[in-house]
Amino acid sequence: MNHGDWVKKEFRKLSRSLGFRYIPDEEIKNRLNRVKDGMKKQEIEALLVVQKMDFYYLSGTTQDGFLFLPLEGKPLLMIKRVLERAKVESPLEDVVLLKSIRDVPSLIRKHWRKLPQNLGLEFDLLPVRDYFKFQELFSGARLMDASVVFREARKIKSPFEIDLMKKAGEIGKKVYEEATKILKEGMTEIEFGGLLEAIAKRYGHEGLLRVRSLNYEAYTWHVLSGPTGGIVSQSDSPMGGLGLSPAFPVGASLRKMKAREPILVDFGTCFHGYQADETRMFSIGKMKKKFIDAYKACQKIHDAVLDEVRPGADGEAIFMKTLRLAKKLGYERNFLGPPGLQTRFIGHGIGLELNELPFIAQGHSYPLEEGMTFAVEPKIVFPREGAVGLENTVAVTKDGYEILTPIEHGIFQV
Amino acid sequence: MNHGDWVKKEFRKLSRSLGFRYIPDEEIKNRLNRVKDGMKKQEIEALLVVQKMDFYYLSGTTQDGFLFLPLEGKPLLMIKRVLERAKVESPLEDVVLLKSIRDVPSLIRKHWRKLPQNLGLEFDLLPVRDYFKFQELFSGARLMDASVVFREARKIKSPFEIDLMKKAGEIGKKVYEEATKILKEGMTEIEFGGLLEAIAKRYGHEGLLRVRSLNYEAYTWHVLSGPTGGIVSQSDSPMGGLGLSPAFPVGASLRKMKAREPILVDFGTCFHGYQADETRMFSIGKMKKKFIDAYKACQKIHDAVLDEVRPGADGEAIFMKTLRLAKKLGYERNFLGPPGLQTRFIGHGIGLELNELPFIAQGHSYPLEEGMTFAVEPKIVFPREGAVGLENTVAVTKDGYEILTPIEHGIFQV
Repeated sequence: MNHGDWVKKEFRKLSRSLGFRYIPDEEIKNRLNRVKDGMKKQEIEALLVVQKMDFYYLSGTTQDGFLFLPLEGKPLLMIKRVLERAKVESPLEDVVLLKSIRDVPSLIRKHWRKLPQNLGLEFDLLPVRDYFKFQELFSGARLMDASVVFREARKIKSPFEIDLMKKAGEIGKKVYEEATKILKEGMTEIEFGGLLEAIAKRYGHEGLLRVRSLNYEAYTWHVLSGPTGGIVSQSDSPMGGLGLSPAFPVGASLRKMKAREPILVDFGTCFHGYQADETRMFSIGKMKKKFIDAYKACQKIHDAVLDEVRPGADGEAIFMKTLRLAKKLGYERNFLGPPGLQTRFIGHGIGLELNELPFIAQGHSYPLEEGMTFAVEPKIVFPREGAVGLENTVAVTKDGYEILTPIEHGIFQV
Repeated sequence: MNHGDWVKKEFRKLSRSLGFRYIPDEEIKNRLNRVKDGMKKQEIEALLVVQKMDFYYLSGTTQDGFLFLPLEGKPLLMIKRVLERAKVESPLEDVVLLKSIRDVPSLIRKHWRKLPQNLGLEFDLLPVRDYFKFQELFSGARLMDASVVFREARKIKSPFEIDLMKKAGEIGKKVYEEATKILKEGMTEIEFGGLLEAIAKRYGHEGLLRVRSLNYEAYTWHVLSGPTGGIVSQSDSPMGGLGLSPAFPVGASLRKMKAREPILVDFGTCFHGYQADETRMFSIGKMKKKFIDAYKACQKIHDAVLDEVRPGADGEAIFMKTLRLAKKLGYERNFLGPPGLQTRFIGHGIGLELNELPFIAQGHSYPLEEGMTFAVEPKIVFPREGAVGLENTVAVTKDGYEILTPIEHGIFQV
């Protein structure tokens, strides 16, 4: 039996029996309409979708290829390698094989009977070399930046998407529950982080966290103990940790964890591409009072943020409120990073990627909307000593919020 | 104590005590010279290095920022966030704080006393939006594609680099040795994959494998059992597996592994950014004869490749030889993929990224050189039934090759 015939006959059944959930037709239609609204605003006649997560969002598959999406007319999914698998995964009707990138215009002409006058591309990620290639292939079209169309469409999650994020959150809950059985004095940060990741995978966590960026890499083994919690690194984050080398200078290190010090675990889980992000504190024996007090302050700030979350609330105003509260609680200089390196956000949008809209941050004054999802993460950092923090992923509901990461907030002490 | 003072005083000692190896001054100088040779050939006056691995290769740090490298004059390292940490990690002399991307030209002018007439950038990865930003900031300069300069410089590894790859290979060896203690009938592919990754991390594996590409993601949990080994997916690879969802349709799945079927484990490890890639076969009880025979063919093809490896040998010729040998052994239709989906490479360059030069592949006719490193991976794929394969990472030496992944070649049977 050849590969294509086998996929056509048996792939759907096998994959469904092993937990695959395909994106329903109706869901894809709604997403296409959201994107088309954005295209109208930007006066974009057609999109060529290249980046993997935009592509998955609109097609339901991540098989390699391009998605052509005209404002008027039907989308065309062009697949480079395994056509049959893409046909199982995507509810789109027009799915064709793409033998060479040079054939993109002719396939579009055949499908749509013309070529676009202007073509939207993801300028925030598309490599320059590909841009020049498309300039050559679509020599009659103006190439336009459509990044904002995708970011705006994807910032509001459907119930289907929020359900997948909840599944990711449930995996995270299991990870934290089992973590206390593993943690031991003298274990290295990276051994602990690796075992947490192994637990998550056992429950179906996909292992990679995605970020919309050329250079920013996400990872789950962000286990920082004592002094490594006080170290800042490459990312715009309150603390980065030591990491394992100058090539990976973030997250868990080979440091052996000690009793009474704060152990911060910032763990993300991923289910069907959708992520949940959460942070909890661990300690071996009772944590020193300084850190317990600081953690209580994080809990207060976390709760104060959630008190404000509802449609219409302004993200920047919420952020400014946390600064005032941190000051009142005595942590002005250590809130969201060590003195001089404090970050300017208390929350980041999350979904298929870790840096989606909205940001609850300075410079991000816009109203929250129902269906937005973001992680709230107050953290307090003491250089040389350690860091504490609490983080949950939440969805904005009609009149408030829902927590998607249902893990208890107390310190996990072993 | 503030963060900067602490880093200056204690960071080097702490990080070294936890296994950090910094790239020596002499090594960086040699790399800069290799890149400058390429710049001369392309008539590039200066480079602005953005992409993380090119940046690490030339500066020794991955702290966020830009590296300005003129053909004549000294390099300037501009760091966005943690200046002190970059100064510890990089042997470069001129390391300055970059408050905003808008300051890049003025910092260069201050350091180099002028701005370049032409500026090389990584067009193969640099996002279009950044390209336009640099066009505005360097309005007097011609922006040029310097991708090939980096790819050519990095294709020959120094003894320092090969040593780090060997360290990665040693981690891989430990993973395979411990794997037999874990594997059990009824365990899911992803649980096994997660535990292997946890073992690797315990020994210092960095967890992320890097690929030079917008959409191609690497991962270590490529555990395929029986029928999932026969499934092809998005990547240009002999088999992709089922994966966990349409969002991550590659690698290990929630399928429970059974006795007597082929279990293919393609695992990559990473030490200080440098990777080793290897594949071995496992089985629970004795594997069916069909797969044992096919695996023996993979061993023959693997050995036949290595017989040819030495400076001056042509990569494409080696690839063509493997096609003839696979045919002779009776596997013409299943070699390197199922019928109709066979790939056209038997080896890929590896180092900081998984898709470096050279490729041992059709269309890649050029001589091997001393210091090149690549993975050799003959694989045989039967749709619906399973896949087998053997893979090692090797370095080209003065008169032959050296294997960097010293794991025994037999089937790991439990």
